Amino acid sequence: MTTLNRRFLLAERPEGRAVKESDFKLETAPMPTPEEGQVLLRARYLSLDPYMRGRMSAARSYALPVELGAVMTGEVVGEIVQSRAAGLAPGDLVLAHAGWQEYAALPAKSVERVERAQLGDLPISYLLGVLGMPGATAYFALDTIGKPQPRETVLVSAAAGAVGQVAGQIAKLKGCRVIGVAGAADKLAYVTQQLGFDAGIDYKGKDATELAAAIAAQAPSGIDVFFDNVAGVTHDAAMMNLALHARIIICGVISTYDRAGQPDIGLRWNRQLLVKRALMQGFLVGDHRARWGEFRAQMAAWLQRGQIRYREDIVDGIEAAPRAFIGLLSGTNRGKMLVRVAS
Amino acid sequence: MTTLNRRFLLAERPEGRAVKESDFKLETAPMPTPEEGQVLLRARYLSLDPYMRGRMSAARSYALPVELGAVMTGEVVGEIVQSRAAGLAPGDLVLAHAGWQEYAALPAKSVERVERAQLGDLPISYLLGVLGMPGATAYFALDTIGKPQPRETVLVSAAAGAVGQVAGQIAKLKGCRVIGVAGAADKLAYVTQQLGFDAGIDYKGKDATELAAAIAAQAPSGIDVFFDNVAGVTHDAAMMNLALHARIIICGVISTYDRAGQPDIGLRWNRQLLVKRALMQGFLVGDHRARWGEFRAQMAAWLQRGQIRYREDIVDGIEAAPRAFIGLLSGTNRGKMLVRVAS
Repeated sequence: MTTLNRRFLLAERPEGRAVKESDFKLETAPMPTPEEGQVLLRARYLSLDPYMRGRMSAARSYALPVELGAVMTGEVVGEIVQSRAAGLAPGDLVLAHAGWQEYAALPAKSVERVERAQLGDLPISYLLGVLGMPGATAYFALDTIGKPQPRETVLVSAAAGAVGQVAGQIAKLKGCRVIGVAGAADKLAYVTQQLGFDAGIDYKGKDATELAAAIAAQAPSGIDVFFDNVAGVTHDAAMMNLALHARIIICGVISTYDRAGQPDIGLRWNRQLLVKRALMQGFLVGDHRARWGEFRAQMAAWLQRGQIRYREDIVDGIEAAPRAFIGLLSGTNRGKMLVRVAS
Repeated sequence: MTTLNRRFLLAERPEGRAVKESDFKLETAPMPTPEEGQVLLRARYLSLDPYMRGRMSAARSYALPVELGAVMTGEVVGEIVQSRAAGLAPGDLVLAHAGWQEYAALPAKSVERVERAQLGDLPISYLLGVLGMPGATAYFALDTIGKPQPRETVLVSAAAGAVGQVAGQIAKLKGCRVIGVAGAADKLAYVTQQLGFDAGIDYKGKDATELAAAIAAQAPSGIDVFFDNVAGVTHDAAMMNLALHARIIICGVISTYDRAGQPDIGLRWNRQLLVKRALMQGFLVGDHRARWGEFRAQMAAWLQRGQIRYREDIVDGIEAAPRAFIGLLSGTNRGKMLVRVAS
């Protein structure tokens, strides 16, 4: 076993600009040593998620920013290699917010042990995606805000992403017509041909009015549920197409991240919400921890029956994380973005 | 009895500009004659409400526009003077969408008979206000969207208006801290000294940042329920002060009416909704007709026990309607705006 631990520190805050690789600093540190009550975790997969962009900023959000010089935050799935805590043993499969690093010494109470049997034949990386935070986001946001009904029309932005692809498939299982919006022909081909979405719309090269017309052509009765991961132009276009009593899930604002700290100026939708008696609500998956068991059991069953499919975009080695994260923010990923830290 | 009927027709649409008196044309028409199945109604009070501004515009809304040359739409309380329908007799007290006119011949099924005994000592004009559409708006919007809880902070815009004064008093009955926003010192004195609101804030002369600071000073833990009748700057300022899991009722957009047809450009709140997991929902009272009996009984009880007070701003004679309506849109009214058509 190596005696070194490679990890990424936050070197600079990208306030009001795009993230650069030099915002992160690769450091080779000594292997951490668990104290009493701690475990040593070896990361297998690191999850890269849009919310991390918010943590890089000093702006107040639903979580504290990452400190400059601290290890970048992130969730991993991995194995216990050393335990100084009761109830956890070497070889145990666990989830933890261990950050962008190969090893971490963590308090036992901050890791979640997962029974391998729960997974069946499903890959452990799914615990960071369709069986983890992104899958739960799709599941609970639809269950608690979107409430899709049979024959309703559901629009999903970032449709091929970690959350979007699951949200669209759940809506299909509920009997809805599902339209995906994404920024590349192959992403749209994927969601319509592989995942069963009814239509796909490319937002690239369209202003809000053009995109609204493209949505109207696919949703002549309007959008009943809008699962929005992006904000910006796609949001505007969807808001021009609301059905009566529409529900709009504000799940992400990825298109606005590079403007953090600057005001988001654009079309306001008060009148549209009023006329359509529509509901718009912000969603954070952390509010639904109490129902996590229900979610994971349901999603594992859907996956094992082939009713939900899931695509991952995996890069190898911790050193690949910054570039992959930058790609995620600009949409070059194809599915849930992961770093294989160790195989 | 006169044989003439004075009424106001819509003469011009005020698209993208303020309403002028010349947008309405006073016409003296022959007394209408009820056909079989109809009644002749004599208006006692005509209600003037912000929603009428929307009906003057050709823009699509939740109701059809008033046609050019047609009688302006509006709800009245009045008495049957002639009946050619079973179940309605001369002298009966009724509510009807009879429009801006002294008399109307209407199908019996389009009028709502009200038992005078239901009112007790309360004036019949209350049927157009606290016991009618504005009161029901406050009641149902809080009941179905705002859901104010004891010790929460509730912000009400247009606080001294027909809806706002009731909304704030209901929130007080629910045990909330209530802050009213209005545009005149005497309106704020009224809601704080007469109606029991905890604080009043004058929006005039403040930009959104200044108004946000004034709200923050009165609501250090943030706004839990925002009852918004106005949109615009007050909306922006409130959105800068949301508490976690805030509920925002989009009840009116009166500050934007003169820009109808032009896009409403300004600060967008997607990120704020996300971070605060807040809910924003458009409200229309017509969606709650099935619960009208419950509302009127509860509100009459509150009024009779003195737990809710209500101020009206009454002008005399149908000819006063246009100027009073223009005043309502610019906030010169003091309480629920009514025209006493006949005493």
